[in-house]
Amino acid sequence: MSLQPQRTIDELKELRALTGDDDGAQRVAWTDTWATARSWMKEKLAGLPVEYETDQAGNVWVTLRGKSDKTMLIGGHLDSVPNGGWLDGCLNVMAGLEVLRRIASEGTPPVTVRLVDWADEEGARFGRSLFGSSAASNTMNPDELRDLKDKNGVTLVDALARFGVSLDTCKQAHAQLKNAAAYLELHIEQGPVLESLDLPLGVVLGTFGVERHAIRFTGQAAHSGSTPMDKRRDALGGVSRLHLEIREVAKRHPSGVCTVGRVVTQPGIVTAVVGQADMTLDQRHLDAEHLAAMLQEAKDASQRIAADEKIDVEWNRIWQIEPILFHPHLIDLCEQSIMETCGVSHRLPSGPLHDAAEVARAGVPTIMMFVQSLYGISHNKIEDTKEEHIAYSVQAFDRLASKTMQWLAQG
Amino acid sequence: MSLQPQRTIDELKELRALTGDDDGAQRVAWTDTWATARSWMKEKLAGLPVEYETDQAGNVWVTLRGKSDKTMLIGGHLDSVPNGGWLDGCLNVMAGLEVLRRIASEGTPPVTVRLVDWADEEGARFGRSLFGSSAASNTMNPDELRDLKDKNGVTLVDALARFGVSLDTCKQAHAQLKNAAAYLELHIEQGPVLESLDLPLGVVLGTFGVERHAIRFTGQAAHSGSTPMDKRRDALGGVSRLHLEIREVAKRHPSGVCTVGRVVTQPGIVTAVVGQADMTLDQRHLDAEHLAAMLQEAKDASQRIAADEKIDVEWNRIWQIEPILFHPHLIDLCEQSIMETCGVSHRLPSGPLHDAAEVARAGVPTIMMFVQSLYGISHNKIEDTKEEHIAYSVQAFDRLASKTMQWLAQG
Repeated sequence: MSLQPQRTIDELKELRALTGDDDGAQRVAWTDTWATARSWMKEKLAGLPVEYETDQAGNVWVTLRGKSDKTMLIGGHLDSVPNGGWLDGCLNVMAGLEVLRRIASEGTPPVTVRLVDWADEEGARFGRSLFGSSAASNTMNPDELRDLKDKNGVTLVDALARFGVSLDTCKQAHAQLKNAAAYLELHIEQGPVLESLDLPLGVVLGTFGVERHAIRFTGQAAHSGSTPMDKRRDALGGVSRLHLEIREVAKRHPSGVCTVGRVVTQPGIVTAVVGQADMTLDQRHLDAEHLAAMLQEAKDASQRIAADEKIDVEWNRIWQIEPILFHPHLIDLCEQSIMETCGVSHRLPSGPLHDAAEVARAGVPTIMMFVQSLYGISHNKIEDTKEEHIAYSVQAFDRLASKTMQWLAQG
Repeated sequence: MSLQPQRTIDELKELRALTGDDDGAQRVAWTDTWATARSWMKEKLAGLPVEYETDQAGNVWVTLRGKSDKTMLIGGHLDSVPNGGWLDGCLNVMAGLEVLRRIASEGTPPVTVRLVDWADEEGARFGRSLFGSSAASNTMNPDELRDLKDKNGVTLVDALARFGVSLDTCKQAHAQLKNAAAYLELHIEQGPVLESLDLPLGVVLGTFGVERHAIRFTGQAAHSGSTPMDKRRDALGGVSRLHLEIREVAKRHPSGVCTVGRVVTQPGIVTAVVGQADMTLDQRHLDAEHLAAMLQEAKDASQRIAADEKIDVEWNRIWQIEPILFHPHLIDLCEQSIMETCGVSHRLPSGPLHDAAEVARAGVPTIMMFVQSLYGISHNKIEDTKEEHIAYSVQAFDRLASKTMQWLAQG
């Protein structure tokens, strides 16, 4: 039985009809709709020579035993954000299923192949993304999650319990990676790069390292009418100047990005000079040295600006993660697969984190393939990809699986 | 009986003890505490040859009949903001009372002298300042006030009724200005100018004209990780660049001020490029042409910046008022009075509006005198002025009253 990319497109539409509404996909992890999606997927396995199990972190594993215990993993996630798109996460699972069908149709493969549907990649309900994959990779600290609640006050602990998952045992999922020798993940780009280059597919080099900070400038609130310009200590001056400077920092480190996403002014009224201004900074780069330099340049600029504006500045780190690089040989195999499928490829970093980053952190050789996103938009019902590009992606991903199995069987 | 500036200081402290608490002054208009302050002031008039009346807008008028109906007005307001200072508004009333006592002690004055305690200058409870003076000046549109409510849902209409005031008749207060030939008001500066010059007193040239606008930049929200810098349409870029440009606009129009007091970002999260950014702009100048030029320069800059950033910009006027200039001869008399009192004076504009602006709009020759504010701070319990400066202000204001009566008697 040969690969049928059109079946993947049809099944994605079936899943959308089953678990979406007029506002988009509603497969939020640890909800009934998510469970519906998983039951539907399980039914699709009927007739395949596979084993189905759910691990202690809620990840679903579909195993096609091969001649060797050495295992190639294919991963994705059926969960979505609320009002999400029809491809984010589930494209990987459904394309992986199609690849699994093709491999199974050819008899016992040389290595074991496992398809994993990670639990709660999005973290949409409790604010903690990569739940299942970080449990499996052993990077999770369950104690940091114990007090999380959703907007209705339901605790993560209670939501997990409904699905038989406990923070006390979820890291036992790590055992699932025991024989893992390669991990493959196909995903929509969720950005504008491939579309702007008019390319269907790209090889992902790794996931950006991230430095995320809250920066507070403190000046002096003052009446907008009675305070001459030269008597002001305008905290917003710090934000405006640093924001513009940070865009220059990003330009000095090509392929890096720096974002100021939130500004809050106090007292925040039309008739007062800003006394306190808060801003967020999110810096990302695939190269750890560039990332560190971008952060240092931003900090230096903030100090210069604060001195010049006669205001104070204070930094607090919100979060950070190091760059995670994918496997060099798998990068080559992925590029070959794309070239053979559509004649042209492109190497790019991933801005968003993905489950693949967690698997790579656990030491498993990892690769991701991106397919073009229309408008660069995701996490929204208008998220979309041309059907011909989805078909290309299933074909190229299938080639990547074959090349990877061959490599593992040889190695 | 000679002028006793120390009595004014003592009475201000008495009023503070009677109507303030640990958080500051609580004489919010249309409340019991405000009524207490007014009753206390009325008692202070015992023994003076004056008439006491409350007009249809709730303004209190204390009249010392002179040889002529031609009238010199001295005005202030006993109402305060919640948690306010001990001088804002009531300094004028108590200093005016001391001047009235001095004039009355010398027999029938050449012109009639009236002390007015304006109702609800602050607008602290219902958001509409200059209530009583705008009714008297005939600039109020009562229909714009009918639906106002305080934070507890009490309507302005009901609050006024408790004090016998109705929106239907309050503009009859205009008749009070019938014979007004001059209006004098003493006020704390509520800004840092006199303190920075180490001067006790200043002559106010007029109140700033104000242009107040809401400006919205619209770009495209995008993921902070997946969107390269050159693919972004960052709405915050419009705000940051316009804010810095607006500070340059103010410098090009000396004595003008431009303030960005509030910035709001959407979606406003650390991981998203800003898709929509709102900012407020407050521009003030004493010269109408400069004010118009400042506004035009800001609008032009916003268009240039929006084009450059590939984002859209939209302006909405929140409020405006023209500059209101005080009377040239009264400016001279005020300056002379200050020079005779403390040897040095300074001319400055008023950033905040005052009841004096409403009286000036009604065509009455008007002047204000400012006394230094410590730290430039007002509308706060730490609002303060050195007692020696308060004493100076009462002396200089008394001289101004004498010079003004002389001028009116001659004219």
